[in-house]
Amino acid sequence: MTKMIDFQTDPSRYRHWRVEYDGPVARLVMDVDENGGLFEGYQLKLNSYDLGVDIELNDIVQRMRFEHPEVKVVVMQSGKDKVFCAGANIRMLGGAAHSHKVNFCKFTNETRNAYEAAEEESGQKYIAAIKGACAGGGYELALACNHIMLTDDSASAVGLPEVPLLAVLPGTGGLTRVTDKRKVRRDLADIFCSIEEGVKGQRAKDWRLVDEVIPNSKFDETVTARAREFAAASKKPDVAKGIALGPLNRKITDNAVTYDLVEVDLDRAARRATITLKGPEGDAPADMAAFEAQGDQAYMLKLCRELEDAILHLRLNEMEAGLWIFRTQGDAEAIAAHEAVLGEDHWLAHEVRQYWKRTLKRVDVTSRSLAAFVEHGSCFAGVLAELLFSVDRTYMMEGEFDGDNRPMAAITLTDANFGPYPMANGLTRLQTRFLGEPDCVDAAKGHIGEALEADEANDLGLVTMILDDIDWEDEVRIFMEERASFSPDAMTGMEANLRFAGPETMETRIFGRLTAWQNWIFNRPNAVGKDGALQRYGTGLRGDYNMERV
Amino acid sequence: MTKMIDFQTDPSRYRHWRVEYDGPVARLVMDVDENGGLFEGYQLKLNSYDLGVDIELNDIVQRMRFEHPEVKVVVMQSGKDKVFCAGANIRMLGGAAHSHKVNFCKFTNETRNAYEAAEEESGQKYIAAIKGACAGGGYELALACNHIMLTDDSASAVGLPEVPLLAVLPGTGGLTRVTDKRKVRRDLADIFCSIEEGVKGQRAKDWRLVDEVIPNSKFDETVTARAREFAAASKKPDVAKGIALGPLNRKITDNAVTYDLVEVDLDRAARRATITLKGPEGDAPADMAAFEAQGDQAYMLKLCRELEDAILHLRLNEMEAGLWIFRTQGDAEAIAAHEAVLGEDHWLAHEVRQYWKRTLKRVDVTSRSLAAFVEHGSCFAGVLAELLFSVDRTYMMEGEFDGDNRPMAAITLTDANFGPYPMANGLTRLQTRFLGEPDCVDAAKGHIGEALEADEANDLGLVTMILDDIDWEDEVRIFMEERASFSPDAMTGMEANLRFAGPETMETRIFGRLTAWQNWIFNRPNAVGKDGALQRYGTGLRGDYNMERV
Repeated sequence: MTKMIDFQTDPSRYRHWRVEYDGPVARLVMDVDENGGLFEGYQLKLNSYDLGVDIELNDIVQRMRFEHPEVKVVVMQSGKDKVFCAGANIRMLGGAAHSHKVNFCKFTNETRNAYEAAEEESGQKYIAAIKGACAGGGYELALACNHIMLTDDSASAVGLPEVPLLAVLPGTGGLTRVTDKRKVRRDLADIFCSIEEGVKGQRAKDWRLVDEVIPNSKFDETVTARAREFAAASKKPDVAKGIALGPLNRKITDNAVTYDLVEVDLDRAARRATITLKGPEGDAPADMAAFEAQGDQAYMLKLCRELEDAILHLRLNEMEAGLWIFRTQGDAEAIAAHEAVLGEDHWLAHEVRQYWKRTLKRVDVTSRSLAAFVEHGSCFAGVLAELLFSVDRTYMMEGEFDGDNRPMAAITLTDANFGPYPMANGLTRLQTRFLGEPDCVDAAKGHIGEALEADEANDLGLVTMILDDIDWEDEVRIFMEERASFSPDAMTGMEANLRFAGPETMETRIFGRLTAWQNWIFNRPNAVGKDGALQRYGTGLRGDYNMERV
Repeated sequence: MTKMIDFQTDPSRYRHWRVEYDGPVARLVMDVDENGGLFEGYQLKLNSYDLGVDIELNDIVQRMRFEHPEVKVVVMQSGKDKVFCAGANIRMLGGAAHSHKVNFCKFTNETRNAYEAAEEESGQKYIAAIKGACAGGGYELALACNHIMLTDDSASAVGLPEVPLLAVLPGTGGLTRVTDKRKVRRDLADIFCSIEEGVKGQRAKDWRLVDEVIPNSKFDETVTARAREFAAASKKPDVAKGIALGPLNRKITDNAVTYDLVEVDLDRAARRATITLKGPEGDAPADMAAFEAQGDQAYMLKLCRELEDAILHLRLNEMEAGLWIFRTQGDAEAIAAHEAVLGEDHWLAHEVRQYWKRTLKRVDVTSRSLAAFVEHGSCFAGVLAELLFSVDRTYMMEGEFDGDNRPMAAITLTDANFGPYPMANGLTRLQTRFLGEPDCVDAAKGHIGEALEADEANDLGLVTMILDDIDWEDEVRIFMEERASFSPDAMTGMEANLRFAGPETMETRIFGRLTAWQNWIFNRPNAVGKDGALQRYGTGLRGDYNMERV
């Protein structure tokens, strides 16, 4: 699996999904092309999916919010006759490297979270309309919807057969949503997760696994009625027209990925990627009407799209780049001006903010060591300063550097750092940072709008280390070399534990707890060994298990 | 590592710790016997520990509460000159099976939690008085204390060098207590967990890693003064005399472990252990004075001690017994009477309740499939009924069974099921069970004291399944066979996710998140492979790492 995985797509290229738009209601039809797998060696039978199918879904969810703001209800349904979705493709999982499995699950989790949150964030409510078998990852697709409707016939059931059938967990939020979202009684959940055939009809409703069970003969009309009803009750403001998300201007070469505003430089020998974000060149749009006219070329939107693509590209295609360094170059005041326009009460401003929120969360859960360098000429202001509080460490230049005539390194806080971009734990990054000294959040707030140079930023606790011209080069070099020398697994485990202090949410549990257990199981011979359940799936033989309990 | 591990010990047998009692202050001195390892093949140098060292510590913490209720402050210190504690013994870890490592960490975690909670629960406050190197598991010992004092000299430092040195995590709560208890700023925590040499002096205080830094010349006197001060300020009521915890009456044979009140039957072919708890034979003590006179022979205390020992024995010595079945036989009313005495406001009643709380939590976090059978003649009343809500599934006999003249199966709820025994998540087991239908908790409360037979117990949602004479045998057999056939790893992961719905606490995070990541790393070649860091430790060679990030 070494071919490059591209996260960019558009409706003209979809092979697995189609969307039928009808005013406030959209039909999202899953109709997976068996022969459209991302890699060789498996067929995507029974609406099973691989990363390619999920890349399309992610694209749809994103376009729904920007290109189709008129949509208030999305009905997710199957284009196949007897199956809703059979879940992640087992042969794909059986053949995939451990790292691919883990990153595949992370991306699918992010996509589920994105459409699950679309109701609360943007008033786009997802309904799962289930006809036919809905198993494993298929039921996890439904679990992330806001309302689950199941037809009542002998063939239609929801199930999580991973444990009995494959010796792995329902790892795309399945277990967590069963306990925390659906609040299924734990002994019933235990039964539900132990049976291959799933649960049908009224029992599915009684056990809180679905919201409605409907006779087959009335299913389609009830789904349609429910969609209209939800649309009518929606509080989402009417928006007539969205903006188009055109293709990114991206150039991939051996050691770089270059966009208009983002540049990724790879130093493979040093196992390092440097991600540089550029400040805006033109003036900020006067208001959101002007922003909307710029569409996908508006700086704040374009930067976010490019950053997101760079993150996804690096995660799946550059597995050995274990350290990412974030840099910025540009005019901090200009950033603040561009960002200020997003304060307007406007649908598009709202969507752009939500998009930054999601993208910053992608940074938070990225299993790489993350650092930021606040250099002279940088523009860590507002939402870009959030990157400083997302990464593991921040190094900042202090004082004049010989031969460097760029503006003095500074950090500029704005309102963006105190509310609109919460982490998965529900707190802002500064609140999480200062959990032990909550007064520091207020102290920082008192300096909104100021260009905080090294000493002041350090006193306020905003950076890890400030370094002058004498020390900078050696210190950051030693840090980078040291970091790149540690065991990547230990780094992943350490960072997953250190990054999310404070409260837990369903989201932090999915990434922190469920994922960790799934990763463990994805390493165990009972699941992935040559006689393990994943390899033996479809042979009629059960996995040959070591029965020792750990 | 196949020799039997015995969790029972007493002060006459300690090799690694000594305790000096002096009124309200006890000195707990760690002075590990290098040659006293539980297994062959390693020496416990530099106060490093293995499971045997922790079994003694667990015994001390327990006796402190029952035998020495006069103690209000415990000072944990080292008996060696230049080292506080070097942490878990690396050669032991390097040589141990994956399952031993995981169960070792679980037990040490439970011991840390037990003395950490002793201040809040029983007014026994633990001080860590650190002189010399305090690294890894050594610092984790200190982190679980309620107050950390560090001497200020060139040799004394606290550190978590696991990640850089061993490519594993500080898995005994280290990472979680750094972020959640000490609330160390995350970038400083990142540095702290990445450096081998640890942090000394004032910086350790500034970074919130310790509570006090004291000049070496004044250290001993300051520790003594602080201990007296805390003892004087303690709200713990004065208790002149404790009760002695004598040896358990236990007989271990090939297929059974037999105590006075608990019987464990092993069916190794079926990979199953059946744990039967017997009801009391004599009358309940009239009051806590009578209970105290009975001492360790009092039913409620004796039963808990035997149950705890059985749990620990099965966990470490019977790894393939993947399914535990809990049964009871006896008089439910008698149980309720014995339990009612514990309602008295009396130090010993309080300690016995806290002990049940800890023991029930041991059940909750046990990585085995757990079930309870409510049979005719059973006595699941009050605290014993908590077992029903701790296990994964409960099967109950319904109606008369042919040839069975024992009293009809029933469940009796008491106040014990509605408050005194919270789970690690801070909720009662019934609250957790009914997270989706909180009214069910009140409904159950309305039936306190009633003998609830199958239909009623089922209607109240207290059992998973009720089965009559015709179905019982087949159904429970199928359940047991099926359960024993699943991949143990998948079961462990599933159960860890399903058992703890609702809020998270530091404790649930340690067992749910930190442990899961550590287990994953304990399976990765970078840590445990033949060229991994654990094997290479001490050779001067760093681990040979696969640098792919997962």
